[in-house]
Amino acid sequence: MENIRGIVPRKIKGFRDIDPNLNQIKWNIINAASKVYKLYGFEHWDTPVIEYADNLGKYLPDTDTIEEGVYSFRNPEKEPVLKSDGKELRDEWDRVIMENHFLSLRYDLTAPLARHYAEKLWMNSLKGNLTTKNAPLFRRYQFGQVYRYETKLDPGRFREFWQLDFDSVGTGNVAADAEVCMVLSDAMEAIGLKRNTYIVKVNNRKLLKGLLQNVGIDTEEQEQAVLRIIDKTDKIGIEGLMEELGKGRTDVSGAFIEGLNLENNKINSIISFLKEFRETEKRDIIIERLYKYLHSSVIGKEGVDELSKINDVLNQLKFAEDRVIFEPTLVRGMSYYTGPVFEVESKQTYIDTKGNERRVGSICGGGRFDDLVERLIGIKVPATGASIGVDRLAELLVLTKQVETEITGPVFIVVFDDKLMPEYQKIAGELRANDIETEIYYGSQKGLKKQLSYADKRNSPFAIIIGEDEIKKGVATVKDLRLGKQQTDIHDREEWKAKVQTEVHRNNLVHHIKNNL
Amino acid sequence: MENIRGIVPRKIKGFRDIDPNLNQIKWNIINAASKVYKLYGFEHWDTPVIEYADNLGKYLPDTDTIEEGVYSFRNPEKEPVLKSDGKELRDEWDRVIMENHFLSLRYDLTAPLARHYAEKLWMNSLKGNLTTKNAPLFRRYQFGQVYRYETKLDPGRFREFWQLDFDSVGTGNVAADAEVCMVLSDAMEAIGLKRNTYIVKVNNRKLLKGLLQNVGIDTEEQEQAVLRIIDKTDKIGIEGLMEELGKGRTDVSGAFIEGLNLENNKINSIISFLKEFRETEKRDIIIERLYKYLHSSVIGKEGVDELSKINDVLNQLKFAEDRVIFEPTLVRGMSYYTGPVFEVESKQTYIDTKGNERRVGSICGGGRFDDLVERLIGIKVPATGASIGVDRLAELLVLTKQVETEITGPVFIVVFDDKLMPEYQKIAGELRANDIETEIYYGSQKGLKKQLSYADKRNSPFAIIIGEDEIKKGVATVKDLRLGKQQTDIHDREEWKAKVQTEVHRNNLVHHIKNNL
Repeated sequence: MENIRGIVPRKIKGFRDIDPNLNQIKWNIINAASKVYKLYGFEHWDTPVIEYADNLGKYLPDTDTIEEGVYSFRNPEKEPVLKSDGKELRDEWDRVIMENHFLSLRYDLTAPLARHYAEKLWMNSLKGNLTTKNAPLFRRYQFGQVYRYETKLDPGRFREFWQLDFDSVGTGNVAADAEVCMVLSDAMEAIGLKRNTYIVKVNNRKLLKGLLQNVGIDTEEQEQAVLRIIDKTDKIGIEGLMEELGKGRTDVSGAFIEGLNLENNKINSIISFLKEFRETEKRDIIIERLYKYLHSSVIGKEGVDELSKINDVLNQLKFAEDRVIFEPTLVRGMSYYTGPVFEVESKQTYIDTKGNERRVGSICGGGRFDDLVERLIGIKVPATGASIGVDRLAELLVLTKQVETEITGPVFIVVFDDKLMPEYQKIAGELRANDIETEIYYGSQKGLKKQLSYADKRNSPFAIIIGEDEIKKGVATVKDLRLGKQQTDIHDREEWKAKVQTEVHRNNLVHHIKNNL
Repeated sequence: MENIRGIVPRKIKGFRDIDPNLNQIKWNIINAASKVYKLYGFEHWDTPVIEYADNLGKYLPDTDTIEEGVYSFRNPEKEPVLKSDGKELRDEWDRVIMENHFLSLRYDLTAPLARHYAEKLWMNSLKGNLTTKNAPLFRRYQFGQVYRYETKLDPGRFREFWQLDFDSVGTGNVAADAEVCMVLSDAMEAIGLKRNTYIVKVNNRKLLKGLLQNVGIDTEEQEQAVLRIIDKTDKIGIEGLMEELGKGRTDVSGAFIEGLNLENNKINSIISFLKEFRETEKRDIIIERLYKYLHSSVIGKEGVDELSKINDVLNQLKFAEDRVIFEPTLVRGMSYYTGPVFEVESKQTYIDTKGNERRVGSICGGGRFDDLVERLIGIKVPATGASIGVDRLAELLVLTKQVETEITGPVFIVVFDDKLMPEYQKIAGELRANDIETEIYYGSQKGLKKQLSYADKRNSPFAIIIGEDEIKKGVATVKDLRLGKQQTDIHDREEWKAKVQTEVHRNNLVHHIKNNL
């Protein structure tokens, strides 16, 4: 079949090119947040984009199988099969058994973090020298692309996107969880979100575990099923939630969604909890109420204790309810979270192309994942952290008009006369020496109009036009392209032209551009 | 086999994690060079890490097949097979024929650039509206990972590494080639390389083509074969070169390398050219000599004309021979180069682990590639640009000791007493508000010694120690960890201790740290 098709230049579905405007917003986010991460003592590490599939495991947010959702392929290189002690597997003739292992494009930055940490301690763990108590502290931040092979791709979602993570591995200290809230809040504000336009939400999985145990739901499987439904409350409402916990419901498309068929009293207990904690309240009051609700559950009480300690640290550093709130109904998708969970929600809305007001919603997520390293080295190593969705946040800034969405291009030097190239080069050199971005036109379309239209597309602030006339007079014609764009109502053509187009003395050219930028 | 192997945490062969020190050097390179690229008017674009295999084509530097050297795999998603007009291929029942296309991890940033440019102009080119003359100018820079599946992996080489490219597509103007030299030179100095420790070398493929035509080598295949051998001159010397052009030679390992079996007079002509231009000379003199040498070759003369124009621009902007030289024997591996080629060579040496002096060699490469876009849309679109090898350059800076290889960690707050956590948090908050990176210890190993050893490993400048005693006295003990490391010859323990460890009044703590950082 291959030879029938000519080569059609195209991107893979769900992938995109990033333009200079979006890149500027994206790298501002990455640089601003990275600075905050460093301020709290996190180090910048990187890991490869591809990893052994078995190392990443199956911790995808929306699915439990590695086959779905992940780009995986066979390694072209044959390698020895390793036994669980890291030694090579051999056949009866003592030959090393070789295999093409599966490789995967990373689907997040947390699984590679667990691999990195586990790899460093692997020999120690084999020797039995590693314990939860002496597991070293490792605090890193990382940014980079991650990949999801989603078969149903919603509009505006991509299969390649950027995350910006920070994590502390080797700490069970709740103060580290409190720190996650502070880092997230500081990072949002460093990125440029105004106070009260976003909120950091905190919950603890242990609360929900306690609640469900009290209700009589105690298998891991049923618990996860109930949590997945609670996680959808914002979308399906309390009504839909009741139906999905019970006999099921028919969604807008007419499809029937199977319910969990829980008994009514169980459903009612869950609903009453959700209703009680639906409204935002002071953290102190929520803690008080949670203690009343969960006093009979050991795990539930542990969860409230942890929230209470987080509250102490937040109060100490004056992170009030305008920055961080407790939301006992918050779940967060990831099944690997074991304690506190975090989410940053944007409170802002925007008007979509159909004129509807829409919420931006969740822009960061995180939580405590005490089991992730254990999978690889058999020792529980507590860890906590969070991740900023760079693309989602960039989109938010654009949609809510909080950033300049068109960056300024270079000062543009028109090539009016090829013989004058040395003069153009000299001017460009002078401007660049003054840190002014400058481009000389090297394209094939020589007309003045075509050149200016190119400069306009680049969003250049000024065009410098020099021909023989200007050379003789010792001047340059400087066209203000920004002004040229603005002017719509032209009363006096001459007056307008005089404003847009100025004759500047050659010796004063750099100075003029510099002062008017 | 899969179930026999336990999960062993490990990276794929040829891949690596990047530590904070290397990351700092790497991102300094990327940011400094990007700023220079922007100063010349290049825009920041990005493309995905994976692309359709047929879009990337087979333009690998050392091999001509896509199967070797590239990580490729079948797309898990079935997609329509496209005909050369971009329409879907259908079977006799008018059903769309679906196929799992091959995807590749990009092996450089130039092939995706050609895809991006071609994709935007695809419809226009189908309609026949696109010509070489009206092909739009596109100037972009990009940085990111690229992948090479090299089966033989030399020590210190990696299968994932970073490139930092800038290119002008849609220009046949030689001034754009001169600009490449200037950008490269400015970028090297912005990164921190001193004048005279690096050199930008320029040649023109057309010269070599002219030479070989004069000699009587005129098939494309033989020309490429000869160029590949000339490219190795630095490694194999003139002697080895003569042998490989002739009957072949036996290399150090004893393996026989088949020669091209050229006639002696051809070999002698090639050698005499290489010898004539072996020594570095003034650009003016080289141009003069080249005109004499190649006056009978149309293509050769064209090449000298282009070099001469590049020389004019360089002279105009005062880029002298301490920054840019002409080297008529330079080849550069890429078979897609069609005119000027560029290389930046570091003149520096370093002492390797065995005590031998070694040259760093080539750190950037580039050239004119007028055919790359044509492959995708059938219209010749001239283009020129270059690429910085980020990892190689970072290695150079480390090996030649031109950068700080250990970054300073955060100010470290010892958790001496868990009850004092609120006070630790308060101090951390104050320091961070003054832009001082600060970490509170959240790890599991509580002893003072263990905590200070962690701070030392993080390269923290100061440790702040506060217990009940300090609280009562209203002070903090500040330990200067840098001083503690330096001190080797301890004459007077008390004097040394007093220097390393200071008692600072609590109100003066931030001020003290700030002044001593």
